[in-house]
Amino acid sequence: MVTVEKVRNDRLLRALARQPVDTTPVWIMRQAGRYLPEYRKVRAEAGSFTKLYRTPELACKVTLQPLERYPLDAAILFSDILTVPDAMGLGLEFTEGEGPRFARPVRSTRDILRLNVPDPEEELGYVMAAMRLIRSELSGRVPLIGFAGSPWTLATYMVEGHSSSNFRHIKGLMLQLPAEMHRLLKVVADAVASYLNAQILAGAQAIMIFDTWGGVLTSRDYLEFSLQYMRQIIDSLIREHDGQKVPVILYTKGGGAWLEEMAQSRCDAIGIDWTLDLGVARQRVGHQVSLQGNLDPCVLYANPERIRKEVGDVLASFGVGNGHVFNLGHGIHPQVNPDHVAALVDAVHELSHPYHE
Amino acid sequence: MVTVEKVRNDRLLRALARQPVDTTPVWIMRQAGRYLPEYRKVRAEAGSFTKLYRTPELACKVTLQPLERYPLDAAILFSDILTVPDAMGLGLEFTEGEGPRFARPVRSTRDILRLNVPDPEEELGYVMAAMRLIRSELSGRVPLIGFAGSPWTLATYMVEGHSSSNFRHIKGLMLQLPAEMHRLLKVVADAVASYLNAQILAGAQAIMIFDTWGGVLTSRDYLEFSLQYMRQIIDSLIREHDGQKVPVILYTKGGGAWLEEMAQSRCDAIGIDWTLDLGVARQRVGHQVSLQGNLDPCVLYANPERIRKEVGDVLASFGVGNGHVFNLGHGIHPQVNPDHVAALVDAVHELSHPYHE
Repeated sequence: MVTVEKVRNDRLLRALARQPVDTTPVWIMRQAGRYLPEYRKVRAEAGSFTKLYRTPELACKVTLQPLERYPLDAAILFSDILTVPDAMGLGLEFTEGEGPRFARPVRSTRDILRLNVPDPEEELGYVMAAMRLIRSELSGRVPLIGFAGSPWTLATYMVEGHSSSNFRHIKGLMLQLPAEMHRLLKVVADAVASYLNAQILAGAQAIMIFDTWGGVLTSRDYLEFSLQYMRQIIDSLIREHDGQKVPVILYTKGGGAWLEEMAQSRCDAIGIDWTLDLGVARQRVGHQVSLQGNLDPCVLYANPERIRKEVGDVLASFGVGNGHVFNLGHGIHPQVNPDHVAALVDAVHELSHPYHE
Repeated sequence: MVTVEKVRNDRLLRALARQPVDTTPVWIMRQAGRYLPEYRKVRAEAGSFTKLYRTPELACKVTLQPLERYPLDAAILFSDILTVPDAMGLGLEFTEGEGPRFARPVRSTRDILRLNVPDPEEELGYVMAAMRLIRSELSGRVPLIGFAGSPWTLATYMVEGHSSSNFRHIKGLMLQLPAEMHRLLKVVADAVASYLNAQILAGAQAIMIFDTWGGVLTSRDYLEFSLQYMRQIIDSLIREHDGQKVPVILYTKGGGAWLEEMAQSRCDAIGIDWTLDLGVARQRVGHQVSLQGNLDPCVLYANPERIRKEVGDVLASFGVGNGHVFNLGHGIHPQVNPDHVAALVDAVHELSHPYHE
């Protein structure tokens, strides 16, 4: 059982609800990760990435590492988006330097028919155990974010079998057998909804859905094959737990053209990548949802002075008012100097005061 | 000397000038390439990709191959965008399965100061020889398109040394030493302008500038570091030759947010990738420029019936009227079945009649 405690730093939850905050909250996509030497140490001791994310104590440990270093306003579960298709029986493997690979990719109608929604407390019990442990260790310091990949994004890996640059198999399926594609997306959406609800019951206080590959679709196909299923998930989620609203952040990399449609999905916030001007995004949908983002991750290669200037530009672009969660526009790169992250976090907190007076 | 002959099939030039045509012209980015068995044969005989593009007779041969197979409305020079930095002394190498690599990437101010604008008839004479040969072989059948990479796109390869997924070095340079970045982009822009003018004098009847990596920039940085230099090039180009206007097509992959700014660059057309609805693009800038695109290259993995339907959708999205050049939204993939390309080309010509009555 999760004990209900007050979140002491509730800036994230307030910003996601478009309520006033003293300073703009900040967290970083992939904040627990390879750029941190303490992460690399635990990763090396674990022996494999799989061991790391499947062992609740280790997943908890690396989740908390960035919070020891930086005054971040949120923790996010350390895990991988591909745990769901793995639990659906595809056999996830991580090979050094090559990224994820499925032993049994989905390539036929038979493969699709064979898929079932996994029981998250059984096949994904290690994630729920990690979530409970992290909540307990955090003891209300900052909110804990749970997450999953979007059905379209998960399906790209499930059908291609690995990371893809041309999306040959999945787009062939989508175009030639759209009914089969929908059948696949439906079962994945059900699995993701069930997984996220289990995360909420295990302690997740906000949810983020990562649609890493929605941006490779045409407008028509994005609405039909990606956004539709994210909407279905949002409609199935537990939206209040332990007397607290559980906000949902929707992120489609390269999704700048579809903000209006995303804002109508009952999400609370939209994650914006760095290619879009945040002020423009706010004009378009800021009256409906909060916005999360959107510093170019490459800015962290620059020196601290320049990072501070760029943080200031993003804050100014959003402008005065509520509803901004600072983040990068995509995950932090593994080569980044950890001191530069400190410069970013401090700059957000220091420079954002004037926008909240 | 290039003999001035009338272009018999001038649909491309008419569409680029937003003049009436009988049917929508079509050509395909990378139409001379690996998906064609006859290309792979010549490539194998040449022994290397470098030999292929540096030998005018072979470059001419593969340029013409897709025109033998399909009733395309344009030829495009077979070459590589990296010939320009190669001619600037960076030492271009193509390694099997790994893509391009520069032996001497640009990493310091000294490296930048050392760069000079190459004489296109000397260091790039093999391109001009190929251009003259192709014009002569075409003898006015269809117009011949010349091309170059954008300064920003070329600079990414010059600074990273090879294809990049995180653009670490170039963005570090851009953010920390913007004056040096501008110095580099200026000399590359001068080199590209000189190269394209030589192509025009050697027979190119239209010009396309490929900004493959402009889309990884923020809005602010795109305008300052990519579009600005493409504008400078366009302002330096010979815009009329042999009594004919030489139209310019500007293409930024992922550039959907910046169409209005691109349309003000004195270009004649904007190439649109597949993620943007063509009708929306036309509403935004169709009164100023023609539009080229924008079928998802993955549609060619589908069967001919589905390809035909998708072609119809793109034509319908543009709608009735002048100023559309049909193309893919990005280069054709090497795994595509050549018969599917035939289905595409025929569908464009057959289905577009009603839009031109």
